[in-house]
Amino acid sequence: MTNKKMKVVLAYSGGLDTSIILKWLQTEYDAEVVTFTADLGQGGEVEPARRKAEMLGVRPENIFIDDLREEFVRDFVFPMFRANTVYEGQYLLGTSIARPLIAKRQIEIARQVGADAVCHGATGKGNDQVRFELGYYALEPDIKVIAPWREWPYASREALINFAEKHQIPIAKDKQGEAPFSVDANLLHSSSEGKVLEDPAVDAPEYVHQRTISPEDAPDEATTVTIDFEKGDPVAVDGKALSPASLLEKLNSLGHDNGIGRLDLVESRFVGMKSRGVYETPGGTILLAAHRGMESITLDGGAMHLKDELMPRYASLIYNGFWFAPEREMLQAAIDHSQQHVTGRVTMKLYKGNATVIGRESAHSLYDQDLVTFEEGSGSYDHRDAAGFIRLNALRLRTLAQRKARLDPTKTRSS
Amino acid sequence: MTNKKMKVVLAYSGGLDTSIILKWLQTEYDAEVVTFTADLGQGGEVEPARRKAEMLGVRPENIFIDDLREEFVRDFVFPMFRANTVYEGQYLLGTSIARPLIAKRQIEIARQVGADAVCHGATGKGNDQVRFELGYYALEPDIKVIAPWREWPYASREALINFAEKHQIPIAKDKQGEAPFSVDANLLHSSSEGKVLEDPAVDAPEYVHQRTISPEDAPDEATTVTIDFEKGDPVAVDGKALSPASLLEKLNSLGHDNGIGRLDLVESRFVGMKSRGVYETPGGTILLAAHRGMESITLDGGAMHLKDELMPRYASLIYNGFWFAPEREMLQAAIDHSQQHVTGRVTMKLYKGNATVIGRESAHSLYDQDLVTFEEGSGSYDHRDAAGFIRLNALRLRTLAQRKARLDPTKTRSS
Amino acid sequence: MTNKKMKVVLAYSGGLDTSIILKWLQTEYDAEVVTFTADLGQGGEVEPARRKAEMLGVRPENIFIDDLREEFVRDFVFPMFRANTVYEGQYLLGTSIARPLIAKRQIEIARQVGADAVCHGATGKGNDQVRFELGYYALEPDIKVIAPWREWPYASREALINFAEKHQIPIAKDKQGEAPFSVDANLLHSSSEGKVLEDPAVDAPEYVHQRTISPEDAPDEATTVTIDFEKGDPVAVDGKALSPASLLEKLNSLGHDNGIGRLDLVESRFVGMKSRGVYETPGGTILLAAHRGMESITLDGGAMHLKDELMPRYASLIYNGFWFAPEREMLQAAIDHSQQHVTGRVTMKLYKGNATVIGRESAHSLYDQDLVTFEEGSGSYDHRDAAGFIRLNALRLRTLAQRKARLDPTKTRSS
Amino acid sequence: MTNKKMKVVLAYSGGLDTSIILKWLQTEYDAEVVTFTADLGQGGEVEPARRKAEMLGVRPENIFIDDLREEFVRDFVFPMFRANTVYEGQYLLGTSIARPLIAKRQIEIARQVGADAVCHGATGKGNDQVRFELGYYALEPDIKVIAPWREWPYASREALINFAEKHQIPIAKDKQGEAPFSVDANLLHSSSEGKVLEDPAVDAPEYVHQRTISPEDAPDEATTVTIDFEKGDPVAVDGKALSPASLLEKLNSLGHDNGIGRLDLVESRFVGMKSRGVYETPGGTILLAAHRGMESITLDGGAMHLKDELMPRYASLIYNGFWFAPEREMLQAAIDHSQQHVTGRVTMKLYKGNATVIGRESAHSLYDQDLVTFEEGSGSYDHRDAAGFIRLNALRLRTLAQRKARLDPTKTRSS
Repeated sequence: MTNKKMKVVLAYSGGLDTSIILKWLQTEYDAEVVTFTADLGQGGEVEPARRKAEMLGVRPENIFIDDLREEFVRDFVFPMFRANTVYEGQYLLGTSIARPLIAKRQIEIARQVGADAVCHGATGKGNDQVRFELGYYALEPDIKVIAPWREWPYASREALINFAEKHQIPIAKDKQGEAPFSVDANLLHSSSEGKVLEDPAVDAPEYVHQRTISPEDAPDEATTVTIDFEKGDPVAVDGKALSPASLLEKLNSLGHDNGIGRLDLVESRFVGMKSRGVYETPGGTILLAAHRGMESITLDGGAMHLKDELMPRYASLIYNGFWFAPEREMLQAAIDHSQQHVTGRVTMKLYKGNATVIGRESAHSLYDQDLVTFEEGSGSYDHRDAAGFIRLNALRLRTLAQRKARLDPTKTRSS
Repeated sequence: MTNKKMKVVLAYSGGLDTSIILKWLQTEYDAEVVTFTADLGQGGEVEPARRKAEMLGVRPENIFIDDLREEFVRDFVFPMFRANTVYEGQYLLGTSIARPLIAKRQIEIARQVGADAVCHGATGKGNDQVRFELGYYALEPDIKVIAPWREWPYASREALINFAEKHQIPIAKDKQGEAPFSVDANLLHSSSEGKVLEDPAVDAPEYVHQRTISPEDAPDEATTVTIDFEKGDPVAVDGKALSPASLLEKLNSLGHDNGIGRLDLVESRFVGMKSRGVYETPGGTILLAAHRGMESITLDGGAMHLKDELMPRYASLIYNGFWFAPEREMLQAAIDHSQQHVTGRVTMKLYKGNATVIGRESAHSLYDQDLVTFEEGSGSYDHRDAAGFIRLNALRLRTLAQRKARLDPTKTRSS
Repeated sequence: MTNKKMKVVLAYSGGLDTSIILKWLQTEYDAEVVTFTADLGQGGEVEPARRKAEMLGVRPENIFIDDLREEFVRDFVFPMFRANTVYEGQYLLGTSIARPLIAKRQIEIARQVGADAVCHGATGKGNDQVRFELGYYALEPDIKVIAPWREWPYASREALINFAEKHQIPIAKDKQGEAPFSVDANLLHSSSEGKVLEDPAVDAPEYVHQRTISPEDAPDEATTVTIDFEKGDPVAVDGKALSPASLLEKLNSLGHDNGIGRLDLVESRFVGMKSRGVYETPGGTILLAAHRGMESITLDGGAMHLKDELMPRYASLIYNGFWFAPEREMLQAAIDHSQQHVTGRVTMKLYKGNATVIGRESAHSLYDQDLVTFEEGSGSYDHRDAAGFIRLNALRLRTLAQRKARLDPTKTRSS
Repeated sequence: MTNKKMKVVLAYSGGLDTSIILKWLQTEYDAEVVTFTADLGQGGEVEPARRKAEMLGVRPENIFIDDLREEFVRDFVFPMFRANTVYEGQYLLGTSIARPLIAKRQIEIARQVGADAVCHGATGKGNDQVRFELGYYALEPDIKVIAPWREWPYASREALINFAEKHQIPIAKDKQGEAPFSVDANLLHSSSEGKVLEDPAVDAPEYVHQRTISPEDAPDEATTVTIDFEKGDPVAVDGKALSPASLLEKLNSLGHDNGIGRLDLVESRFVGMKSRGVYETPGGTILLAAHRGMESITLDGGAMHLKDELMPRYASLIYNGFWFAPEREMLQAAIDHSQQHVTGRVTMKLYKGNATVIGRESAHSLYDQDLVTFEEGSGSYDHRDAAGFIRLNALRLRTLAQRKARLDPTKTRSS
């Protein structure tokens, strides 16, 4: 009787935690592990993950390493920025938006290698487990999902280190103890949370920041930069056309240097609790302001107001892991439809934490100097039209006031 | 035969334009003019308006000068900030929110003096005419409204100056020519628009700014300040209890000194055109960030997300002049209901244009360190619950994926 | 050593299923069971539940039987109808709206008797488990919740019957086999689901209907009835003032006799699946139409449109069990604010399944015959105002068309 | 000096009112009139309009008569029904949806014949003037619009009849006096308003109904019919494929015969007043119910709830005349995206005013009998998952309850 091993595709960073998971899958599940390591621009090399996986006994054909940076920015980050998306008024969703892509690629690999299960390293209290798993299930409804942090018995850091030592998993010196905070990073942002950040009354220490210098350390001279847009997406910086990932990298570099994009936030997790995170989104912060600036002259007011009303729900869908849900796609269809004329150039001033639009121009502009000028301008506008406009807009308010007076005559003018 | 004169209550600033209107009402309408001058914290004295009105022939009992600063901030600005209100993602509605109060007081005076009409100095292309007049009609449905800019024949600045000279209206030297831009101000903000600002591609010149120094000129040291909230409204700065107007003045001063609150925006007017304005809202910008910070630990996620979805419409209602409309009041009822626990203290860092929350604390906090910690915490949270939570949230996505596979078997894993 | 028994408050109908649960709690949990039986107008006596509980060994002081009909209608049904609430366009939420009240009363009793836990008889696939438990937790966050259907090992009807027989629980003859469908009922509605209804392609058999005769069986003559409203709630039928529960009973009787209020629906459950139910809401169906009719002349259009946009979310919150969530209360505050003038009389025609508004009148009416007449009416409306109203509403559309022509001159008229 | 006549395209019904307008344009504007008569299924011939126009001196090449029925239903009615659109909870927008098509065709003709202006016969108090003119301006921003009812001096019916007689416009006997109500009709609906309908307290007389028999007069036997859908649009009745217009005609006939689709409504006009109309939408009423039925098994709950929330705004946009506005198109993009699987068959029962879904089936069904059954079904659902689902959904409610208890200990259970 054959005893076929379960085959599991693990989202593998090469770090200590996912290495422990890798070994745990091999030992506890007796699984054949397939590792998938994505370069999403988190910084650092991904190739060491290959060596580490090999060292932990993963067969070479079971090691997948993909550079997903362009796809990440083009198909996930940019569509999200078309909506000026922020969660709870502020968070640019840097972690949330990466999860569906990882899930998607993991499922593709699972199909390719004929795997039975997928596995991720997200903890049992966070949002990421939801985002990964909703992605898995939406793409492969009968896949088995393994979430070690919800399953294994290791309740403390010490127990995990013991497991690692027992299985000869190399542990970097600085990982012996507990990290003072936990980090996630990709081309869009870095996040830090936990430990030293757990008291929201206490300022985040400077050393948690990794992607930006502080506004105080930024240059005393402002940097001016132009960003060109086509149909809602940025395509060039200072006139130089760039691929999506290269463009975001360029903005990240500008943001980093000018202390732009830090956010210290207490947010409402989908799983029901409040948590505090420190986010750094240097390029994204510039991009959000620039995109709003581009829309300000190219997007009709009615369309903009609808977008603004839809945005919070769109943001929650992404935050909660529903990227592949039909209602996210419906909102995306509406948003994308609005962007066909969001084309032109925005000039930004970057200065010590501030990313400010100082100019916008476009062949698609709806701004009409003739129309808006105090002087008599084009024939499109007749001042007297405003009288009728106001009177009909006022009609229902007048009717309401008349009712009030009728029902309570003591409140009326004539009394 | 009696020849009773029409009595008109004019919103009178004491400036050249409303002085011309005053005289025009007297000469063209043969009206008895009642002036109403409000101190909304626009800066400068309001008493000179009395002398000027007297000089233009207004009888002393027909001159009304009111200090409305506390009412303005308490009953208009603070309710609006409870909603984290911004129009088109950015504008803090400093002009819009003052209009309903002026309209309301003007109608009260009209009732008191038995006036037949009210009159304002807003132009025929802007939003303010709508805001004034919707306010008038909502409060006094049969009032006659006079809007000189839509009625008189003076098509150029020169014609107006001629009228002024003809009627001995004193003209300040610097008003002989045309102002390089037009200004509105109150305790919440200053706005500048027109002329030198009419090309949205060109950076706003430094000299249009009146309420803030530039970030570049702000101190190299950050200022730290605490703001205390009670039920959604700020009540103290650095622990010192302040009345609404005094508190906003204090924040304005802090904002001014730290280069905070400038906005250069192209917006969509209610009357249908795009216009460009430069807004300075120093205290309001700090307040918006602080209020969001306070809500971040005291407001439930579900309530916050609903607020965020309602906000753009609430903002449009205020922007468009519908403060007294029932749907604005309905939204206010919902918003106010959410604020009963938005109480506590926020610590802000102010630095060269940045207003950043660096700490929040509250006896009403919903943040639970025990719940969120990576370590095993309180018994309220069981990691395994997340598995069921995810699986049921995923159920409809799985059903959708199964349908897709059923209808297009070539796309399935097993193929 | 004391061996204090766990004390559990059970939502007890007196039927077979909850009797089995009662016994199971006594035998498996070794619990002291407190029964709570609510009269929500489900029909039939509630007193037999007392005798049955006694027979099953519940001590008299542990038996709670409450008539909650007035509270149910006044504090739950009527507030919901103020919003014209329907789920997925059609369902009047008759089951959903009863659950929070049962949960609330159960928690009150738990506090009174010092119970450790609460228990309900809802199954593990339905919405009701969610509604009960969200209610419990919202009111008593640390209560223990027992959900037998998710816990016990009885996977089939047969196993349950065996348990019942073993514990001498009397089983009505017609309960020996499986019911052809499952039922929930209260003063607002009856629902039927399962078994014979599980194929949504097949028409529901006539015998599942319990609260209405069929339209075919209803009289050939229409019944005309008036309903009076005060601030959004019905207060009288045919001029006779009635308490909330009596009024709903009266409308139920009228609806029953005229074949009104049947709905055969496939709906989306909160737990992620589609299910099919047959609902009968005779009085509620009349009330919904009448309330809309009353609003049609007393509620401002702006307020009505906001209500209509908020309603689907409000409905989902109730359907999903979030009655006690702050966002439901926020929406209620907005809705209730809108109802202050929804006062007057509606005349309804009831005929073979149709509940039709044929007249409405109110001292609070906003309908103004003078205004709307084709003839020249009151001075409030000047036809020429419409020209300006239209031109300014059109301005942004014209600007968009001009852009289109500018960018693609081949599409313009002049070409 | 050339004296080129103004050329005007008139939306011409052939009736008395638009004949008077035609003559008025010729005499008062000295215009060359081009008539456009559309067959939108209003009933009656359109060819007589040709003879009448000729008789009134319109040159043959200036007479345009188009059968737009298929385009009307396919490109306007069906897209609207994909959204389950109703205005103010009830009105199926039969008049509103026809106006943009007439405006579009009128502009096309204006371009073809090189006209200077377009003209319609809508009055100055209604919505139709807005719908026509917003359509004109959105498609041809600089077109001149002539709205005789807002311009001419004829304040009474008598004055108009005098004008007609003076210009030898033939007047049907029954048009000598005033009609007891005014009518609009097309393939989707007939509307009646004014005069005998102006008191909303009084029941609409039977004789105003034109497209339906009364429920009382309908057959005593129910009619059963199936409707097939593809991607959200109906394509066949009783298995017989039909073109859009033919299908709607078929449903109209079925609705007519069964007394379906009458609505007596007081609605809020865009121009600010309440008005009362009697609408008959026999086929549309059946279609709305059938479409909801089709969606109930084929549309995901998340998508459906988003649609339901967007619908009221979508309805207002159409009602207010913003069919060509970008936000209507954005919403349409979202709605259309949702319809790709709304394919299958619905069985309807039609009986004396009731249009009831009694069965639905689809290869695209999301209804899963295995999942929903009370018995243990497929492996996709584990009852125990519901516990975790509920506990995490409850977490924020528990935190809120804990805060409440903390702040007011007298309210807690332990007290």
